[in-house]
Amino acid sequence: MQNVVIKEIFDGFNDYLNKEQELREQIREVVREVDQAVKEATIALQVIHSSLTEVSAACVVARKQFELCRQSFQRLAALIPEGQYYRYNDHWHFLMQRVVFLVALTVYLEKGFLVNRDTTAEILGMKTKQADGFHLDIEDYLLGVLLMATELSRYATNSVTLGDYDRPLAISKFVADLNSGFRLLNLKNDGLRKRFDALKYDVKKIEEIVYDISIRGLRADSTTGSSAAAPAAEQ
Amino acid sequence: MQNVVIKEIFDGFNDYLNKEQELREQIREVVREVDQAVKEATIALQVIHSSLTEVSAACVVARKQFELCRQSFQRLAALIPEGQYYRYNDHWHFLMQRVVFLVALTVYLEKGFLVNRDTTAEILGMKTKQADGFHLDIEDYLLGVLLMATELSRYATNSVTLGDYDRPLAISKFVADLNSGFRLLNLKNDGLRKRFDALKYDVKKIEEIVYDISIRGLRADSTTGSSAAAPAAEQ
Amino acid sequence: MQNVVIKEIFDGFNDYLNKEQELREQIREVVREVDQAVKEATIALQVIHSSLTEVSAACVVARKQFELCRQSFQRLAALIPEGQYYRYNDHWHFLMQRVVFLVALTVYLEKGFLVNRDTTAEILGMKTKQADGFHLDIEDYLLGVLLMATELSRYATNSVTLGDYDRPLAISKFVADLNSGFRLLNLKNDGLRKRFDALKYDVKKIEEIVYDISIRGLRADSTTGSSAAAPAAEQ
Amino acid sequence: MQNVVIKEIFDGFNDYLNKEQELREQIREVVREVDQAVKEATIALQVIHSSLTEVSAACVVARKQFELCRQSFQRLAALIPEGQYYRYNDHWHFLMQRVVFLVALTVYLEKGFLVNRDTTAEILGMKTKQADGFHLDIEDYLLGVLLMATELSRYATNSVTLGDYDRPLAISKFVADLNSGFRLLNLKNDGLRKRFDALKYDVKKIEEIVYDISIRGLRADSTTGSSAAAPAAEQ
Repeated sequence: MQNVVIKEIFDGFNDYLNKEQELREQIREVVREVDQAVKEATIALQVIHSSLTEVSAACVVARKQFELCRQSFQRLAALIPEGQYYRYNDHWHFLMQRVVFLVALTVYLEKGFLVNRDTTAEILGMKTKQADGFHLDIEDYLLGVLLMATELSRYATNSVTLGDYDRPLAISKFVADLNSGFRLLNLKNDGLRKRFDALKYDVKKIEEIVYDISIRGLRADSTTGSSAAAPAAEQ
Repeated sequence: MQNVVIKEIFDGFNDYLNKEQELREQIREVVREVDQAVKEATIALQVIHSSLTEVSAACVVARKQFELCRQSFQRLAALIPEGQYYRYNDHWHFLMQRVVFLVALTVYLEKGFLVNRDTTAEILGMKTKQADGFHLDIEDYLLGVLLMATELSRYATNSVTLGDYDRPLAISKFVADLNSGFRLLNLKNDGLRKRFDALKYDVKKIEEIVYDISIRGLRADSTTGSSAAAPAAEQ
Repeated sequence: MQNVVIKEIFDGFNDYLNKEQELREQIREVVREVDQAVKEATIALQVIHSSLTEVSAACVVARKQFELCRQSFQRLAALIPEGQYYRYNDHWHFLMQRVVFLVALTVYLEKGFLVNRDTTAEILGMKTKQADGFHLDIEDYLLGVLLMATELSRYATNSVTLGDYDRPLAISKFVADLNSGFRLLNLKNDGLRKRFDALKYDVKKIEEIVYDISIRGLRADSTTGSSAAAPAAEQ
Repeated sequence: MQNVVIKEIFDGFNDYLNKEQELREQIREVVREVDQAVKEATIALQVIHSSLTEVSAACVVARKQFELCRQSFQRLAALIPEGQYYRYNDHWHFLMQRVVFLVALTVYLEKGFLVNRDTTAEILGMKTKQADGFHLDIEDYLLGVLLMATELSRYATNSVTLGDYDRPLAISKFVADLNSGFRLLNLKNDGLRKRFDALKYDVKKIEEIVYDISIRGLRADSTTGSSAAAPAAEQ
């Protein structure tokens, strides 16, 4: 190249481009670790669809995987340069929703309530404020909760198969409340909105299961509301 | 909603969602200002395709619009919260490339060389470091330079129509050097790479114009290299 | 631009284009208000799926939101220039159907019959004639009624869960009559036709609920027709 | 149907629905007439691509077809109920752009300038104000002008083939001015914007034709600007 000015200008960029590519490779590596832990936790929690007695044990296994996620996320947090969380978050966006889903499902199975974002972040060793850099995004939290609702509709179906007629009623109340919670939100017309629009199918599905139980007189009694809300893992 | 826990969790999110939407609206407003300035500068610089004598004046008009962009960008910089540049940069990504294109074209017309990223940022009142928050991204700079190359191929065509047979030769050398500059870069397989792949068509187009001029003996002489490199605006 | 004729022609259009964009922005603002009221009314009316005793109270809340809609629609009517209702109605088309749905559901819950278009328009402070400019479109009215039918099928399901075995029978008769009503219409092959075609699934769904109740001998007696038609809100 | 209320409500709608369908059928009939005239005018004007001497005659034929369009548009105007132009304009939206294109092309061939919207409307027997009901929409006018630009790039190519080396230069100036005209407009991100973005390809194409003529020394002389702008039909 004859033009020294241009050569100088471009020479300076390669350092930047190479560093970025290296960093992305490192991120991908950590993300693969999280992906592995997510897979293990998912497999463990699948047992809820086929057994009433192994739920507690599955939650223990899942908790161990969250501990692995926690370690990976701390490495990830150290990798991301200040102010560049949103530059790289495409790498873990989807996976983070899966992790939140698993944490929320586990806490629901253990305790019967919705884990909030702060506790989810704590379990995963993450911050919650944007100013803290690597943090648990509100959108990722909400999308993870929606994933749980879909899993719960499947759980309601299989509970009936396993002979547990109280579980679907508790799930129905819980998911109806989630639905009302999302309705409170001022969602703009984006991905979260569309995903929330699909929640109604989960709600309807679970209501129909409860209907089938009710019409056949399979509900324990009409005052089962509180006991039905008991966490699955304590059964 | 009967579930107090869920209500509390969701109530807290609306504040966040509303603030985000307000901020995006404010960003859109400033971006519209920049868009207007870009339009005016573009119209002014179009004169290079139809007149040999009005180039300097057009550069003066464009420079005034860059001053307006500078003011808008400073407002934009004040709007973006720390560490969230990459969260919102979709709003100005494309427009920033247009601004860089116009600055690079203007400097080339005035001085005959490639403006570097630091000077471009200075003209636009922007920082250059990522750590500084709102900054002139390297990718946006490079994509703007590629837009200029395409405009220069059109400029070469119309220079011939206007009877200026030296200009295409100078442009050819300049764009060939740009091409060599981009070849130095370690581009991964992304948007920048694809856009760079299209640069070869501009290079080829300009080379054919120089060929047409050469084969017809329309070049002043074989030592016109230096005079041809003279900026257009000084003619 | 050197061409004075062209410059003059185009100069005149910007005023038009800017005014249109301003108007659309104003319309969007009012539509957002209606959207908020729709959201509140929807949340209030969700209670019919989980409680037999709170229906009346929910209708009162919904009515208050219709009052807010009424005020917004009057502002909207003032915004739309004469003869341009159909130019801008994409902004409120979908939302209008939601409002009609909520009004029709509320009136059904209160009185047990189908609100007609005139009364719906009156509740919302709208005209009914096209010549009046901003009016309640027949298509929007019909599409809103179809939305209600789907909600009623869910209501029938949950009534059973709540132990109300008369409600589904009343709903079944009502929705069957809606179905007959739509059959009277000479629908062409458009959106309304397609949406009506889906009504049969709601009809079928509700019929199956009534079947489930009947086959299990859960119906009060065979002469419950008139009492079942009693509005929910009076229970 | 047992429900008298519902029957009454629906009975009233059929009259409305039938009238609408009848009206749409009548509109379609008139639109077919216009379509036929557009076809004839298009065929007549195709001669500009193969003959230098038959342009005037082609314009005369086209003008006769515009007279037929004029009569059809007057029938159409009488059909459209007050305030419902925008309800039915999907029927003629596309065709109207074709008609404007043909009128603009004919006037350009005859006189060498851009016909304005008022004159176009006059030729077609249409109003220009929205308040007048059936009128020539600004968007349709602008889209028609853009169609003409594409045809002119083809005309420039074929003029060279026919040995007319001045025509492309005049077209180049004209289309460059159209381009500047469109740049003045505050277009939002819609169909018109996208269509305008494609104009640059027409501009570039024509510039390259002028380039080819220039580099080969085929231009009459450097002062041909004014004579080149002379209308084609007067040759």
